[in-house]
Amino acid sequence: MSNLNRYSGDLQKLAESIRTFDGTSRKGPIASVSEIFKEVADAYGGCIADFGDDAAVIDLGNGDVILLAADGIWGRLIEKSPWWAGFTSVIVNINDIVAMGGKPLAMVDVVSSTDPETFKEIFKGMAEGIKKFGVPVVGGHTHPEGEKSLSVAIVGTAKKEHIIRSDSAKPGDVVIYAIDLDGRTGPNSPYSFESVSSKTPEALRKMYEAPQIVGQRQLATAGKDISNPGIIGTLGMLCETSSVGARIRLADVVMPEDSEITVERWMLMHPGTGFVLTANPEKAEECMTVLRDGGMTTAICGEITAEKKVIIADDKNTAVVFDFEKDKITGIRK
Amino acid sequence: MSNLNRYSGDLQKLAESIRTFDGTSRKGPIASVSEIFKEVADAYGGCIADFGDDAAVIDLGNGDVILLAADGIWGRLIEKSPWWAGFTSVIVNINDIVAMGGKPLAMVDVVSSTDPETFKEIFKGMAEGIKKFGVPVVGGHTHPEGEKSLSVAIVGTAKKEHIIRSDSAKPGDVVIYAIDLDGRTGPNSPYSFESVSSKTPEALRKMYEAPQIVGQRQLATAGKDISNPGIIGTLGMLCETSSVGARIRLADVVMPEDSEITVERWMLMHPGTGFVLTANPEKAEECMTVLRDGGMTTAICGEITAEKKVIIADDKNTAVVFDFEKDKITGIRK
Repeated sequence: MSNLNRYSGDLQKLAESIRTFDGTSRKGPIASVSEIFKEVADAYGGCIADFGDDAAVIDLGNGDVILLAADGIWGRLIEKSPWWAGFTSVIVNINDIVAMGGKPLAMVDVVSSTDPETFKEIFKGMAEGIKKFGVPVVGGHTHPEGEKSLSVAIVGTAKKEHIIRSDSAKPGDVVIYAIDLDGRTGPNSPYSFESVSSKTPEALRKMYEAPQIVGQRQLATAGKDISNPGIIGTLGMLCETSSVGARIRLADVVMPEDSEITVERWMLMHPGTGFVLTANPEKAEECMTVLRDGGMTTAICGEITAEKKVIIADDKNTAVVFDFEKDKITGIRK
Repeated sequence: MSNLNRYSGDLQKLAESIRTFDGTSRKGPIASVSEIFKEVADAYGGCIADFGDDAAVIDLGNGDVILLAADGIWGRLIEKSPWWAGFTSVIVNINDIVAMGGKPLAMVDVVSSTDPETFKEIFKGMAEGIKKFGVPVVGGHTHPEGEKSLSVAIVGTAKKEHIIRSDSAKPGDVVIYAIDLDGRTGPNSPYSFESVSSKTPEALRKMYEAPQIVGQRQLATAGKDISNPGIIGTLGMLCETSSVGARIRLADVVMPEDSEITVERWMLMHPGTGFVLTANPEKAEECMTVLRDGGMTTAICGEITAEKKVIIADDKNTAVVFDFEKDKITGIRK
């Protein structure tokens, strides 16, 4: 119960803070985008267009799929540290492919800034990320005018039957968190947990192969990488697109030792490497073993429910974080 | 010689205007990006990392390649018309894949704006482009804060032996321009020629299949889609990365009938659909027939030379536009 030693006890307030966290509320516009494109996307059978997933799946029809994802970096992070913005852009993109059980192949970037020094720092950060993960940036586009912005897209591959989607969790599945806890609060935000920069390329590549092995052995029913919405917010997105709910025991959630990091803060943090997965209870141990062998800390922290609510529980009470009868994160439903 | 009826006769001034055009000078930062990544990219044999090309080529090792490209839309175009920015973002990305002889599969986007109306218009423009070309946007990332920006990445496929690179032009090749002249000066800039919005999806898809056929039949030695640097600037980029030069006869350049469009302006314009290709003289006719069958107007407008200069000629004189012994466009050389 060590988690709960770093916890105020106010469960309702915690639930509220997760629901209203701006890392989560920023996901709102995804649904409207999705709606506009849905009609068009539906016309193309070769494409599993899925705006709720980390990466889109393009079916090549021969058992292989191409995974394609894009991420932009908040302007305020570029302002604060262009190097970290570049480094982070690589990490989040690689996470998008790896979370789906895919193998990342290559990235392209679009960078805009009027300041040559900003360009240089962004690219140095990206180059560091590339060296760590062994996935190259192979092209892109630079704008020497305009406000600072940074977008990166990534392509990966997988066997169709090995991909880990986020819309396929089923009631009765267990919820597994797998997070690299060997890190510290990031330099640019109290809500980021940085565990990548100090690792060797070998350790990182081993860690990022683990979800690919989970996919190949079909050990998970669904999964998603933990991003800005944090640990519960990301699970919320997975539940929303899967049309299910979840119950999470705070005492069991994978958490770093750092006594400065309270449960309240951890629930809103964005781990450098972290995944939420769902698994058939019979496969959960093998799934966790693979992820642990990759260097992550894992635990079963709850269950998927038919009731479409994400509920958190401490040692006494429960509180509803999302009730999908009325709440929306992305608004994307199966 | 009808082209030269709409021409001032000042060839040196024209050469100077092409060399200093901001659509061309904006390409400068590509080299520094390329340098930073080169060391890293070289370490990955599976990837033909080519910053001088329209799209990067990722070799799957089984004869197939994945093509990956990204483009950003100038902030000033988003300001002027978010709809056109969205529409254009689709066109330029599809051009990147098609120019390489590839088949476009799917796109992802990163859009940022604080204004919901801007989002909506950008997405409506993109949706129109998607309907025209039949290539879906399958995911991406939205930022409801920050300055207006729009980046789109695209993935495509091709057989490795069918791709049309831009660094493979050889002295003795002829230079072919293939441009859709069925259009008009675009609504947002005197330097854009708009020929896509009024076409049917059927006509467009037929037109965009033509370069794929050129690739499949190996009719071109190199090629590139004509983008912001314009007709001569784009040829300049192709010559620079191929370590060759070219001589172009202005009288022979493919040009629209519109009497308002002078040679001087046309040289700086960005056609909606336009390619510069190089071909072995023996294959030039077949190459042009394929492109003409797709609906484009084509002509042999000059030759590739061993001397690393791009030279334009009118009926009396010649002028050097780029001398790669001292000038740089992207700075990328073989």
